[in-house]
Amino acid sequence: MNSIIRVNTRSGKVEKSQVSAEEMRWGGRLLISKFLLREVPPTCDPLGRFNKLIIAPGLLGDTPVTTAGKFSFGGKSPLTHGVKESDVGGEAGAKIARLGIKALVLEDTPETLKTRILMVSAKETRLTDAPELKHKMVSETFQILRERFGPSVGIICIGPAGEMMMASACIAVTDAHDALVRAAARGGLGAVMGSKGIKAVVIDDLEAKPSPPFDAKLLQEANKEFAQMLLSDPKIGNRQRFGTSAIMMVANELGLLPTRNFSAGQFEKVEEISGETIAEKIDERKGEGKYGMPCTRGCVVRCSNVFPDPSGKKAVGTLQYENIALLGPNCDIGSLDEIAALNNLCNQVGVDAIETGATIGVAMEAKVIPFGDAEGAKDLIRQIGQGTYLGRILGQGVVVTGKVLGIRRIPAVKGQAIPGYDPRALKGNGVTYVTSAMGADHTAGNAFETAKSVNPLGIENQVESSKKLQVRAAILDTMGLCLFVRTPFGSKPELFSLFLKGRYGWDLTYADVQKIGLDVLETEREFNRRAGVSEEFYGIPEFMREEPLPPKNSVYDIPLEEMQRIWSVKLPASW
Amino acid sequence: MNSIIRVNTRSGKVEKSQVSAEEMRWGGRLLISKFLLREVPPTCDPLGRFNKLIIAPGLLGDTPVTTAGKFSFGGKSPLTHGVKESDVGGEAGAKIARLGIKALVLEDTPETLKTRILMVSAKETRLTDAPELKHKMVSETFQILRERFGPSVGIICIGPAGEMMMASACIAVTDAHDALVRAAARGGLGAVMGSKGIKAVVIDDLEAKPSPPFDAKLLQEANKEFAQMLLSDPKIGNRQRFGTSAIMMVANELGLLPTRNFSAGQFEKVEEISGETIAEKIDERKGEGKYGMPCTRGCVVRCSNVFPDPSGKKAVGTLQYENIALLGPNCDIGSLDEIAALNNLCNQVGVDAIETGATIGVAMEAKVIPFGDAEGAKDLIRQIGQGTYLGRILGQGVVVTGKVLGIRRIPAVKGQAIPGYDPRALKGNGVTYVTSAMGADHTAGNAFETAKSVNPLGIENQVESSKKLQVRAAILDTMGLCLFVRTPFGSKPELFSLFLKGRYGWDLTYADVQKIGLDVLETEREFNRRAGVSEEFYGIPEFMREEPLPPKNSVYDIPLEEMQRIWSVKLPASW
Repeated sequence: MNSIIRVNTRSGKVEKSQVSAEEMRWGGRLLISKFLLREVPPTCDPLGRFNKLIIAPGLLGDTPVTTAGKFSFGGKSPLTHGVKESDVGGEAGAKIARLGIKALVLEDTPETLKTRILMVSAKETRLTDAPELKHKMVSETFQILRERFGPSVGIICIGPAGEMMMASACIAVTDAHDALVRAAARGGLGAVMGSKGIKAVVIDDLEAKPSPPFDAKLLQEANKEFAQMLLSDPKIGNRQRFGTSAIMMVANELGLLPTRNFSAGQFEKVEEISGETIAEKIDERKGEGKYGMPCTRGCVVRCSNVFPDPSGKKAVGTLQYENIALLGPNCDIGSLDEIAALNNLCNQVGVDAIETGATIGVAMEAKVIPFGDAEGAKDLIRQIGQGTYLGRILGQGVVVTGKVLGIRRIPAVKGQAIPGYDPRALKGNGVTYVTSAMGADHTAGNAFETAKSVNPLGIENQVESSKKLQVRAAILDTMGLCLFVRTPFGSKPELFSLFLKGRYGWDLTYADVQKIGLDVLETEREFNRRAGVSEEFYGIPEFMREEPLPPKNSVYDIPLEEMQRIWSVKLPASW
Repeated sequence: MNSIIRVNTRSGKVEKSQVSAEEMRWGGRLLISKFLLREVPPTCDPLGRFNKLIIAPGLLGDTPVTTAGKFSFGGKSPLTHGVKESDVGGEAGAKIARLGIKALVLEDTPETLKTRILMVSAKETRLTDAPELKHKMVSETFQILRERFGPSVGIICIGPAGEMMMASACIAVTDAHDALVRAAARGGLGAVMGSKGIKAVVIDDLEAKPSPPFDAKLLQEANKEFAQMLLSDPKIGNRQRFGTSAIMMVANELGLLPTRNFSAGQFEKVEEISGETIAEKIDERKGEGKYGMPCTRGCVVRCSNVFPDPSGKKAVGTLQYENIALLGPNCDIGSLDEIAALNNLCNQVGVDAIETGATIGVAMEAKVIPFGDAEGAKDLIRQIGQGTYLGRILGQGVVVTGKVLGIRRIPAVKGQAIPGYDPRALKGNGVTYVTSAMGADHTAGNAFETAKSVNPLGIENQVESSKKLQVRAAILDTMGLCLFVRTPFGSKPELFSLFLKGRYGWDLTYADVQKIGLDVLETEREFNRRAGVSEEFYGIPEFMREEPLPPKNSVYDIPLEEMQRIWSVKLPASW
């Protein structure tokens, strides 16, 4: 990966350049933070011509290291107005990496918006008009492009929400079998893609000549050890069968499961929507249903599934904890079939299911539809895709929706909806939501994994723990590795050194790798500082500091000053 | 004025306390900045229970000094999320001052919102239920309360927009003859009043025993001299006849008149909407039409008018430059009758006509209705009052409307609509909009008055000039004086010393008075700093830096760093 391709969406001009020695060290989330700070005016309009949409594989993106096909989208977020990196699995990332592309940068905006696709292959990169794709749903877009370009291309696209530049719009990616709709969901980067007039990016790596790794054998051996360590972790087995919803019952037990617009932390019908129930229904219904599916080639975690409707036909792929939490309990909807249908609608319209579930919860509190009304919720998501006035409100996400509908209980931090972990019952996540440049994003440092070692209801050690988790997440997002592979690094953090030595010939200690993670956080924070995005502006929602969350009946009580101490916390050089 | 009355809108409890020696020195805008910084958590939800609505006469509020009846409303703004002071004429301010009330502070929010009125008299302060006023228009509310409480009370109220907590909601005040609807319009403080469940405040000063001034004779003489100086200023004569629209033709000449959503700075039909035309039509149509009306008792400026419809019936009172600019040219509407009707609708629904005019301009750009469609515009304002989904979008002001409707040309700074001076053609106002804690607010320091001495298209001296203007505005807003009285202070700044000596017995030089103005700006800025409201977050709109404004074809080109130099500018101790 040694080329950078820049596409000017106004002039159509494509420029390919070689990476500098410094840029060579960047990948995924680190590259995005560096590019944004260097090239994007921090005070720019996120949907204007000075923002850029950056697509970047991780440093290990062209290696066989398991899960390393995750890749990053980045830009200034229309939702948070700060830096945003949103990563995703699927097939396109590895193909970009195999083409030797370190970053694909969409620049400027067209004079007048047209519907275009960007073709990227070993031979050329070019924009072509595709008016027939205008406002097409995501799966139909995939299907049309699949028919046109054949089975081996990777496809990235937006739905109508992205085209309408809605701040909750996501970017969708195919998996190897077009069974799943993966999404770089958070932060509204689909709207940034829409502002560039790019409906889809098609990656053809058939004639790619990937650069050979520095030491293929070392890489292979390290990966083998890594995969074995992963496979011997009982959590991985759970994820293969129960998916990310393996944690549903624990989340409920901890009382952090968002329920009825974050008014409770336990859901009466939780058993009906648990990971176990998902697996049972898949076993029962058979048909197209399946669990244990990888989202990137070679992934051993295989946490994805296709959830079938009662007749066995695919309802949605994949059905995950976050989406279930927000579209289910948070909307008082306890039927997996309804949740699957809602999730599929989000995927088709092209909106973040977390943001949308939180938004529907607020709309329900505003009595637009009653809590529990799944049919009503489907109608709301359809209206987002249609761009009705109500749909346009909802498509802007939970903060705008709350404001417009006159609701005070708005579950968001830094303009972005809180995901499936109420910070009153998992206080470490509150620290992450407020201090991460990403806003309310569990993938930026999820305290769920430390809930046994750090009291989730206490204040003590939350800041130190969040810092550690945020650095870990930043490292993995820079490598292009999935967050679910973190366990092996606990016993063998030098695995990173082996991977990077094998791929690039670099000699790095884990302390060096940790510095990469810290560099990500500091660079992102500096962008936000220059953009005027503060930790004060949209902190923990006021109601979460006032209203105890049943059944633990805790409020969020970590003072802002305590959270801001995170920037002076020094970490030991261990994972 | 030595008492502070606090009304807890949750418990209904009323507390009256004596001012401290320090508080005695505070009034109007200074008092609001000090109270907010001391008592309101800067990161609070503007519509939540920790925000306060503070009503404060100026330091000269209980004196006969001409125009001194202006008084201030303050709180954390739901529009800008920063400190907000919005002042207004009318009769209620002087009555509050005569009752000896330095500040009336509405605290907390009710458990469940009811429609209530707050009665304030020499005897008591109490909340009473008034369900019959729910969602009543402003003039009807005034009328009902006038019938109930008689001709001598002062009335403050909100319209349905405030009750629905819309961020563009204003607070309306009666004049002595109920001819005018005056509004503390900017920053959405009507929504803060709505969040407290207070539909109206009725001020009965019949039994007031105002404290005698320290030296009544000195005060009277100084005021006499002051009034004479004002009356000998030719600008005042113009204002009496042409109202604030006396500047319309000059604004057009300077090319700064917002036209068709800030896409031009001159309006083809400007002569049809000028101050001169207003006066002609009033002369022609007679009936209820009138110009040269005072908004506070004893005002010699008398810039208000009642604009009649063709039959001579009152269409609106008063019709001002700002509202005409935003509801007229900015919406491509060139008929005074249509503009008067739109302005009246804004008054009735209870929204800021500046914010609403800018919002309708954006809705027109989004093709919700065509530019120039006055009937459509009326319908939009009615929808705000009805709370339809579209109305709720528009009622949130121009930033939310632009976002939701997918428009990039959003004329706002710090979340608030730009008033009738496009900063590309009056660059000093750009400095004020960005650096003032108030956001885009011409009353915070209007470079229009210095357009002859500081090149409005140049960069040079804008920062120094804006600082001077901002300090002046802060002083006047603290005294309770109208911005239109600034001229006499140019030749005799020690008038302030005479007023304050006469009223309070204080011995202050003008340098001391200037420090009061600087104290206001610094206190407000500190609140915003703690609230995380930065000068970077919503600066000059991107399109104004890119798109030349015809006919001067200038872009806004003062760099943020240059504007931020304002904080280190030292002023000489002169007006």
